[in-house]
Amino acid sequence: MYSEKVSSLLARKGIKIGDRIRLNARGSMFEGRLMPRPDAGSGDVIIIKLDNGYNVGIGMEGDAPVAIDKLQDSVITTSFSNASASRSAKNIAANSAKVELLYTGGTIGSKVDYVTGGVYMLTKPEELMYEVPELGSIASINVRHLMSVASEDISYREWQAIARNVADAFNCGARGVVITHGTDTMHYTSAALSFMLKDLKGPVVITGAQRSSDRGSSDGFMNLICSVHFAARGTIPEVGICMHGDTSDEYCNFIRGTKARKMHTSRRDAFRPVNSTPLARIGTDGSIAYSNDVTVQNNAKDIKDMKTTAKEAFEPKVALVKAHPDSDPDIIRYYSGKGYRGIIIEGTGLGHAPVSTPHKEYNWLENIKQAAGSGVVIGITSQCLYGRVDSSVYRNARLMADAGAVYCEDMLPEVAYVKLGFLLGNYGSEEAAKLLPVNIAGEITKRSEVDWFV
Amino acid sequence: MYSEKVSSLLARKGIKIGDRIRLNARGSMFEGRLMPRPDAGSGDVIIIKLDNGYNVGIGMEGDAPVAIDKLQDSVITTSFSNASASRSAKNIAANSAKVELLYTGGTIGSKVDYVTGGVYMLTKPEELMYEVPELGSIASINVRHLMSVASEDISYREWQAIARNVADAFNCGARGVVITHGTDTMHYTSAALSFMLKDLKGPVVITGAQRSSDRGSSDGFMNLICSVHFAARGTIPEVGICMHGDTSDEYCNFIRGTKARKMHTSRRDAFRPVNSTPLARIGTDGSIAYSNDVTVQNNAKDIKDMKTTAKEAFEPKVALVKAHPDSDPDIIRYYSGKGYRGIIIEGTGLGHAPVSTPHKEYNWLENIKQAAGSGVVIGITSQCLYGRVDSSVYRNARLMADAGAVYCEDMLPEVAYVKLGFLLGNYGSEEAAKLLPVNIAGEITKRSEVDWFV
Repeated sequence: MYSEKVSSLLARKGIKIGDRIRLNARGSMFEGRLMPRPDAGSGDVIIIKLDNGYNVGIGMEGDAPVAIDKLQDSVITTSFSNASASRSAKNIAANSAKVELLYTGGTIGSKVDYVTGGVYMLTKPEELMYEVPELGSIASINVRHLMSVASEDISYREWQAIARNVADAFNCGARGVVITHGTDTMHYTSAALSFMLKDLKGPVVITGAQRSSDRGSSDGFMNLICSVHFAARGTIPEVGICMHGDTSDEYCNFIRGTKARKMHTSRRDAFRPVNSTPLARIGTDGSIAYSNDVTVQNNAKDIKDMKTTAKEAFEPKVALVKAHPDSDPDIIRYYSGKGYRGIIIEGTGLGHAPVSTPHKEYNWLENIKQAAGSGVVIGITSQCLYGRVDSSVYRNARLMADAGAVYCEDMLPEVAYVKLGFLLGNYGSEEAAKLLPVNIAGEITKRSEVDWFV
Repeated sequence: MYSEKVSSLLARKGIKIGDRIRLNARGSMFEGRLMPRPDAGSGDVIIIKLDNGYNVGIGMEGDAPVAIDKLQDSVITTSFSNASASRSAKNIAANSAKVELLYTGGTIGSKVDYVTGGVYMLTKPEELMYEVPELGSIASINVRHLMSVASEDISYREWQAIARNVADAFNCGARGVVITHGTDTMHYTSAALSFMLKDLKGPVVITGAQRSSDRGSSDGFMNLICSVHFAARGTIPEVGICMHGDTSDEYCNFIRGTKARKMHTSRRDAFRPVNSTPLARIGTDGSIAYSNDVTVQNNAKDIKDMKTTAKEAFEPKVALVKAHPDSDPDIIRYYSGKGYRGIIIEGTGLGHAPVSTPHKEYNWLENIKQAAGSGVVIGITSQCLYGRVDSSVYRNARLMADAGAVYCEDMLPEVAYVKLGFLLGNYGSEEAAKLLPVNIAGEITKRSEVDWFV
């Protein structure tokens, strides 16, 4: 909301949010789209987004504009709704694919506060759409404001809500779904949705931003554009993460939801496939190149008659622990004692824990045996992340397998953790242990390729 | 030890272990080095290592050799000792650099048992030297058999023993030290030695193998050759890991001990620098190429008068825990209650834990505040591994820093864990918290370079 002074100036000129305007100020001409004003109480400032992606704020005092003109109406052609509004189609571009955009929060919906310098989260995701009006020419987009949560605060309850909404969207005619999400735990959510959603009618594309939207280096707009392209036309009916493929701003990767991992704290190309290749590469121009071995959507099947379902039961009493030098095996007993039904161990190398150490207090074997014996599902993954665990090479791993630990092939530790929560939510412990090392949603591959490494 | 039948045959021919022999059997000629026989009770078999790296076993029964001849004496020129033997110099190549080889166990000292198919560990590390006699032409090597432990079973007590022996070796005239070690926790040990050892007179080169020594694809011999080259002539007086740089068998990398990580369960080039580049590249021919920004040994300083010391005190009551969706913050209270003095949290993204979640049972903030308030040092790293944590960008991280958590820059979680154990072993908690985010042994860099990523 702009200040009264600015609002009345804009009203006189017939300028609305999103319109393209030209502004003569500070002895220069500024041309771009009028942005919404994020904070009401910080003075008389007009904010426009320049074509180079940067936002500038032009004050009404010292450097007041000597002229301000509207060049073009807002080109936003998308319809908006929020969680409480009806889902009735208000699409303007009637012939284009219907894409549901589920907004959950995160950096893609964050902005720098021009007064405090801090980052705050948008309360109205529609603001996001004002900044990328070109989305309207790609698809007919319905925005739903599900929640505004930083992804590190997301829990399985949010996964369930998202899964339900994705299923609803497909069953109400969406061709694809885009989910905007914080990047911190995006790969946990992508894994959860991969397991929970059945009979997808189209792609579920999770995207976000590593830099907030008013930084010149922001990746959010491009990620969103590539994601909507893929939701509208991509032929892989799976859950995946769509983020920058490298730092060139030329393409995004679509990475399988159970094979993706955030591998860098700040780079725009932080998301990488682990023990996999990207399933597709999407250019900013909408071009899509597919990897050789992906399931392409079965068009023979009558998608209209399919019903997407969300199998959302989840057991949160699953732990993820790391075995390492001097790690205390009592952690297994601690979680068993708290009623935990599953524990994923990030072992070393091929999936080892200290089990032949001469130092008794560090020996994990007895604790693993006791927990497994009492029905706790113990899964073994590797903290190496890349590669596959194997209980057949060294004695220590064979001892662990004999004690009842389940070796999880080439599954990422985080994915095994999410999968075990999903399995224990839907099945008994014995069945869950049986299904843990069996591929359900692309999380396990039979054979590793040589180029699946950093 | 060979069977009596084989032993007497070899004695008649004047053939000893390590000699080059030719054997006519099964209608073919086999030429190679005579290997020691690993297991006494498994029949009359002669084992020779062919020039292609494979071992073959020739039985004395059906396919008995029709001829066996010695071609050349063993070319092993190194001296051997074991932990109980005296350290007196028995070096044959008097002019070459003295390199101490500390044997601790692991795959590099393992072999497939020809009877059971399992992998077992050598009890006599000298056997390793028989297989790589060319080491003797690179340096004058003294082998010490410190222990035979799989690296997943190693604890801080083994780190202390290794550190003491490294210091002793330098103070007794070694130019460099090579440590053979299992690969699973090699990077934990390299970090521990980096912190424990002061005033190194030369390189401490940790090496091992991803494949056991009688597999054709074994990497151990080449890793050992490159490591001895670097210990004998390398000019970086630091602890580092020397393993395959890629899969070409052409060179090894020397990676700083506090910046290395095993990133693949089985590849020979599994070890990668994280938030760093390799310090040097060592060709199998002994060529050494240095990275641009390494400390080259100060030759002006009189190394002879220096004394290498091992600051070996270590506090094992430090935990390494991961924050993730639905992770239970009670884990902080659990470790505090057990008398743990430090906890390293592998946070998400820039170093976050769930601290603004609406689900109270998953909120980590109060537990962090309580533990930090009672003197437990809480360090924050990122499970992304690559990149740097930062408490200034998002509110959740600011809340955590305000609660007393220490942000650990671009330190790997495992390295922060080892460092905190080292600091708490040597300093009070306040001093340890102060030193945790300060560079001591190359574990923290001021600035990240663009190419420091996968």
